Amino acid sequence: MNNNEQCSAVPTNRRIVLQSRPQGEPSVSDFRFERIEIPTVPEGSILLKTRMLSLDPYMRWRMNAGPSYAKPVDIGETMVGATVAEVVKTNNDKFRVGDTVLGRCGWQDYALSDGSDLRKLDPDVAPVSTALGVLGAPGLTAYTGLLNIGKPEAGETVVVAAATGPVGSLVGQIAKIKGCRVVGIAGGADKCRYASETLGFDVALDHHESDLVGRLQQACPRGVNVYFENVGGKIWEAVFPLLNDFARIPVCGLISQYNTGTGQPGQPGMDEFMRAMLVKRLTMRGFIVTDFIAQYDGFLRDVGGWLKAGRIVYREQIVEGLESAPEAFIGMLKGRNFGKLIVRVS
Amino acid sequence: MNNNEQCSAVPTNRRIVLQSRPQGEPSVSDFRFERIEIPTVPEGSILLKTRMLSLDPYMRWRMNAGPSYAKPVDIGETMVGATVAEVVKTNNDKFRVGDTVLGRCGWQDYALSDGSDLRKLDPDVAPVSTALGVLGAPGLTAYTGLLNIGKPEAGETVVVAAATGPVGSLVGQIAKIKGCRVVGIAGGADKCRYASETLGFDVALDHHESDLVGRLQQACPRGVNVYFENVGGKIWEAVFPLLNDFARIPVCGLISQYNTGTGQPGQPGMDEFMRAMLVKRLTMRGFIVTDFIAQYDGFLRDVGGWLKAGRIVYREQIVEGLESAPEAFIGMLKGRNFGKLIVRVS
Repeated sequence: MNNNEQCSAVPTNRRIVLQSRPQGEPSVSDFRFERIEIPTVPEGSILLKTRMLSLDPYMRWRMNAGPSYAKPVDIGETMVGATVAEVVKTNNDKFRVGDTVLGRCGWQDYALSDGSDLRKLDPDVAPVSTALGVLGAPGLTAYTGLLNIGKPEAGETVVVAAATGPVGSLVGQIAKIKGCRVVGIAGGADKCRYASETLGFDVALDHHESDLVGRLQQACPRGVNVYFENVGGKIWEAVFPLLNDFARIPVCGLISQYNTGTGQPGQPGMDEFMRAMLVKRLTMRGFIVTDFIAQYDGFLRDVGGWLKAGRIVYREQIVEGLESAPEAFIGMLKGRNFGKLIVRVS
Repeated sequence: MNNNEQCSAVPTNRRIVLQSRPQGEPSVSDFRFERIEIPTVPEGSILLKTRMLSLDPYMRWRMNAGPSYAKPVDIGETMVGATVAEVVKTNNDKFRVGDTVLGRCGWQDYALSDGSDLRKLDPDVAPVSTALGVLGAPGLTAYTGLLNIGKPEAGETVVVAAATGPVGSLVGQIAKIKGCRVVGIAGGADKCRYASETLGFDVALDHHESDLVGRLQQACPRGVNVYFENVGGKIWEAVFPLLNDFARIPVCGLISQYNTGTGQPGQPGMDEFMRAMLVKRLTMRGFIVTDFIAQYDGFLRDVGGWLKAGRIVYREQIVEGLESAPEAFIGMLKGRNFGKLIVRVS
């Protein structure tokens, strides 16, 4: 614990818990801000102080009850999330006060850990915030989903939606490195300009503008070989008829469904979909990042190398203060963020 | 040409052509029976006399106009199909009169070939009819789809519909050899008895009986790891909720859709399907048999070996005479066949 904290008047742990399960879009009243005592540190454990909190779309699903690939956050429980944190007390030989680590402290100032879920970060290798984005779970998601399921080959056309987000931007950049034509879909002119000028995508389409279907068709004159699915709904509807024989569809996220649930109009019916699956011999596979955790080292080597060589870029949007997390999170689900969304907690 | 044919009064080529494109279920009036001259045999070619014609569900799709994975049969064109045939004239050094070959002569007595699409059959290895079924395209379909996409592991549950057909029966038997629990779905008590008693499936369910969903759930107490999709529609609807995490779904056929087109009620909506795809990390892949043609030798070695060792059995239903083909084909689309349907042409 550094001097500042020792001097502050009885430091407390501020945390944000789930107050109620949202129906549709979450509102700030679904979250509750609390102050509790900072926990004491048992033998073998470490007390972490959160520096940065990652906000990611999957958190919306964790706010729902019912089965999914991970346990829901309980009512009254601290919201989950990946964090960059600093070791402020330690009863564990493997960690020293001042170590910076990647952990899962959630939406709070302080958290305990036994160390088993932590990874030490070296600020000399890359800015530690990248452990939440391009060199963290979003990056691993993009890298493993694209390469294991999408299997892009030079000359093929890869379409990615949410194209300026931490996953989509890396998907497109890796596809460019692999020699593909990349068509990104994003919301708004600024994001589209960034996707074509900075990320180097061949075409960037604004889904807020009219006739996405027609523009997408023009942008993909040889059809679509890989569609990296982040969104679902109307984007899936637009891409579906353009899929080539033997197209591959990594299903990574469905952000358009997270708030609305099911029943969006306009998508192909199940019969039509199954027919295309067969006739076009499509491959579709759902995945979450932990399915490919064994590829973490290769990911760090490749993407870390490309980053160092300037072959890929990343973009972060930092919001200040834990108290800003709910509003920033709600905005992200509406596409208001521009780049990897991170809350600077302390 | 043998003596019988030389003695018959001016032998002709009887053939069945597509008369009209069916809307929904085909009727016999969609086919036309014709007699034409037997073609002369150019240099390098062979004249084949059809012994046996294979009837298969994919032929229904070929009767439709519009794009699919293969060119439609034109109006007035001979219906396509795999055949066991005998060489009756040859101007090609590689074939001798009397050779028995696997070819694609279609629904007719005689056909020309340049030999490039033929495979010689040795009746001492296995009955030549097996080249149309268990050791032919249906067998290769079952073998490659199950092993490449389904990837069954010992102890897992494999569900297969059309379970007594040439594809389904082999899928289930290979899954048993691989140590899986196999649940077959078939239409009628006789087929179900055959599936459990002769094919050795753990459970066989009659989809004509009520509450398929409940009975399937009971038959799969540990869920479904592999669903080999031959049928679509209400069978897909029943299996879908039982799919385990990381389930694999080779999409091989959709016989329930071939006549009805699209729009069958009761199936999951696209949103619900996509959600399951992601949450359960499903793998779904459409294929047709030629996609895996490179595995033909391994297939013949494995399945031929299992056949010889008595580890797998097969069943054929032979109908007599080319003129019976339309009615037999129409019945097959309604599930009236029991085993691999073959027309004995001569």
